[in-house]
Amino acid sequence: MTRTIEVLSLDECRALLATHGVGRVAVVVGGYPEVFPVNYVVSDDRVLFRTDPGVKLAHARFGRVCFQVDHLDFDEQTGWSVLIKGVVHKLRARDPDDDGLRRAAEQIQPWAAGDKAHVLVITPVSVTGRRILP
Amino acid sequence: MTRTIEVLSLDECRALLATHGVGRVAVVVGGYPEVFPVNYVVSDDRVLFRTDPGVKLAHARFGRVCFQVDHLDFDEQTGWSVLIKGVVHKLRARDPDDDGLRRAAEQIQPWAAGDKAHVLVITPVSVTGRRILP
Repeated sequence: MTRTIEVLSLDECRALLATHGVGRVAVVVGGYPEVFPVNYVVSDDRVLFRTDPGVKLAHARFGRVCFQVDHLDFDEQTGWSVLIKGVVHKLRARDPDDDGLRRAAEQIQPWAAGDKAHVLVITPVSVTGRRILP
Repeated sequence: MTRTIEVLSLDECRALLATHGVGRVAVVVGGYPEVFPVNYVVSDDRVLFRTDPGVKLAHARFGRVCFQVDHLDFDEQTGWSVLIKGVVHKLRARDPDDDGLRRAAEQIQPWAAGDKAHVLVITPVSVTGRRILP
């Protein structure tokens, strides 16, 4: 049996993003996309996650990325997926405009070890979502 | 508490890929990566999934993609992630070289409705994985 796919509204996407603490960031490296799970928070429609220097951070100067969250129910064979396309930048340490984002970033709780001293911020260009109906 | 990250061997990545039926394909569209959950099978180290014509299929002429599978344990705050970078092509209907892949493709069980008449094949260029240890 296969199920119908429903397009989610922006409000539904926002609500679903708020229910999760782990998503996946995709960046383009050498022509290939790469996908990494990250712990994240949402603040003012922006997605924040922490990282150590590396591939993800190399894209932090307004690189094009996407952020994806899904929930899969293997028993019911249903689920939803929300996809944010946007640009990423590194959170500035002193800019007063970033006060709210810095406070939000303190709520990020990375599972993995590492300093993860850098906070990256994804500003959405588009937010879309799909749900498989039971 | 944060946990140590362990690099997985190729054999561990292969074993973990075989335990799952849903992964995520990422393609690059207009400079942005996009991520889609798909039902998949693995055959001869290649990843097969079905699709309707659309964004994913537009990349089917040996486009660069990645395929990612993870398992996240929210209670233990652990998990693993396997990432395949590779090239994607459309499974040919008549080429005898593709007999084995066509048989494997019959095992794909898409959750979502749609003809999904096209089978896409990802041939790996690299396979890497990470695990967060409890």
